[in-house]
Amino acid sequence: MKVKGNHFDTIWLSPSDTGVVELIDQRWLPFRFEIERVDTASLMYTAIREMHVRGAPLIGAAGALGLYLAILKPPAGVDWAVYPSQMANWFKLCRPTAVNLAWAIDKVMDAISGTDDPVLMAGKALRSSLEIIESERRNCQMIGKHGVGLIEEVFKANGQRQVNVLTHCNAGWLACIDYGTATAPIYEAHASGLPVHVYVDETRPRNQGARLTAWELDQEGVPCTVVTDNAGGLLMQQGKVDLVIVGSDRASKYGDVVNKIGTYLKALAARDNNIPFYAALPSSTIDWQLSQGALETPIEERDGDEVRIMEGFSGDGFVPVHIIPPYMQVSNPGFDITPARLVSGIITEKGVVAASYKAITDIFPEIN
Amino acid sequence: MKVKGNHFDTIWLSPSDTGVVELIDQRWLPFRFEIERVDTASLMYTAIREMHVRGAPLIGAAGALGLYLAILKPPAGVDWAVYPSQMANWFKLCRPTAVNLAWAIDKVMDAISGTDDPVLMAGKALRSSLEIIESERRNCQMIGKHGVGLIEEVFKANGQRQVNVLTHCNAGWLACIDYGTATAPIYEAHASGLPVHVYVDETRPRNQGARLTAWELDQEGVPCTVVTDNAGGLLMQQGKVDLVIVGSDRASKYGDVVNKIGTYLKALAARDNNIPFYAALPSSTIDWQLSQGALETPIEERDGDEVRIMEGFSGDGFVPVHIIPPYMQVSNPGFDITPARLVSGIITEKGVVAASYKAITDIFPEIN
Repeated sequence: MKVKGNHFDTIWLSPSDTGVVELIDQRWLPFRFEIERVDTASLMYTAIREMHVRGAPLIGAAGALGLYLAILKPPAGVDWAVYPSQMANWFKLCRPTAVNLAWAIDKVMDAISGTDDPVLMAGKALRSSLEIIESERRNCQMIGKHGVGLIEEVFKANGQRQVNVLTHCNAGWLACIDYGTATAPIYEAHASGLPVHVYVDETRPRNQGARLTAWELDQEGVPCTVVTDNAGGLLMQQGKVDLVIVGSDRASKYGDVVNKIGTYLKALAARDNNIPFYAALPSSTIDWQLSQGALETPIEERDGDEVRIMEGFSGDGFVPVHIIPPYMQVSNPGFDITPARLVSGIITEKGVVAASYKAITDIFPEIN
Repeated sequence: MKVKGNHFDTIWLSPSDTGVVELIDQRWLPFRFEIERVDTASLMYTAIREMHVRGAPLIGAAGALGLYLAILKPPAGVDWAVYPSQMANWFKLCRPTAVNLAWAIDKVMDAISGTDDPVLMAGKALRSSLEIIESERRNCQMIGKHGVGLIEEVFKANGQRQVNVLTHCNAGWLACIDYGTATAPIYEAHASGLPVHVYVDETRPRNQGARLTAWELDQEGVPCTVVTDNAGGLLMQQGKVDLVIVGSDRASKYGDVVNKIGTYLKALAARDNNIPFYAALPSSTIDWQLSQGALETPIEERDGDEVRIMEGFSGDGFVPVHIIPPYMQVSNPGFDITPARLVSGIITEKGVVAASYKAITDIFPEIN
């Protein structure tokens, strides 16, 4: 999508050096737009771990390219019988909740299996990584094509008024390669002239909604309003929300949606106010092993300082300020589970389906 | 309650000078504990307006004492036929949405009515202010005595494990004179040896939970954990919350509870997980004119900069940092409505009752 009028992806192979990956370092948005050059596996690990890049599809792509860099530039004297899988496991553990990271790493590992020569291996890892990137781009585009119908339906039903969508966190193009998941139908609607406005949950503790989603919508010219995570319930009570669309970090084939902490609360409010609640996700986000209820999903407990300390812009740069003293106990879980019963449907690259085992496995018969 | 081991109220008449009111200046908590000496009406006006003191019961008491100071120390040559009511109206407009402020000012005006002599008038205003303070203290204490039974019930039912209470915003003693409303049953439980632990919603955008509730619980020795407003749903899904207790800014006689924005989302999650949800409130918080559903409650839309800019502590002092650029549109509603159907009960100074017209008017027959 556009940044100051020019098209960008979130991550790409340097056009001048195939040993370098470039990516948007998202830590400084919306105040500074910075591109980072990543030329080693450990720099990529840091970029994922420290959230220079984040969002399930994007960290899958970043992990794949990280494994490629690891194979391209190995330390001296590595044992090639174990080195690639060691690096693969290292990257998988970098962020445990999102299924895409492990999925993408496995894709690359499949692609290089049976190859002994490191140079050939690197070539295959690169090709596989770029295929992942292109398939993520295509999937998001298709999610947009399928999901826009939901916005159009509301537009027709409400007398062709502006359609108000609420979203949580950043499931935008900054979380993917392009288009986004939750935002893809919104961008598609906007491009086709449907009047759409987005309420953006700020999404504490890391404020990805306030910092990323609002910025990317604004750059694309989509009207949006940032609200605290507390506000969505009232907005729905007041009839100000027509539709909720969120992304997902992991979904079960039964339609349960694991997503950024706080999503479940918005699903409850949507249900209580008869507002449709959709999760937009490519099939790569579905964990086919996950049980009904998805309760065995590991919920990442993140550093309490993410809650205690807020980073913000103060004239000359980013300043961390303490909201809560260091001695105070904090819990900082990263995700919650929205049970299928609260999900009106899933927007996938193959179409919009009910959040049910039958509907999901019908549309993806090759996987189950 | 206790601050560094010593008992404090939030506001009191100076023991050495009846022309001086002292109060805890809450703007610097939890990083600095400062007591402000207020010796003129206009300083009290500023203290209320700029939120050195906040919380409905507390600003009522502060307004009453402000009016007392105005009468005690009039400018030269005032017209006593109009001066007290002019000052009363000025204080009422200081924070126009707070019902308790107008209520307390009216109490003082009633007390001085029919008195011409300024010295007698000041004495009556002081007595009336101190009565308001004592009645607020007593109401909170009684809320504690009645509400502790709910915590005890859970303790007995769960095999005498620690009882985990979740609360939202600050309905603690810092919002009142002492004890608090939502916190009163918690302090009572802690004092009587029941093992109670509190999850404190940080409560964006002003972080009253993170800054005030956590601090006052910690000072009193009650174990607590600060969480983002997004986290409560997951905590309930995980069985980590036994009971939700919140305060209220305004309640209907049907049991609908208007409270800090985000409360409704926690009530929905509590219901979805079969967790009791209580609102603790003195009868002065019940708006007897309010309809069923309380939908006509004016919802204060506050300045968007409260969301855009975060104030935090940074080594040498308080620093405001931008989370969201100034050009971004923000909506910042202050309250939401939790409908009676989601409220397990109301904890009042007269006992715990169902959130229903019958139960509430039965217990307060003199008002209806």
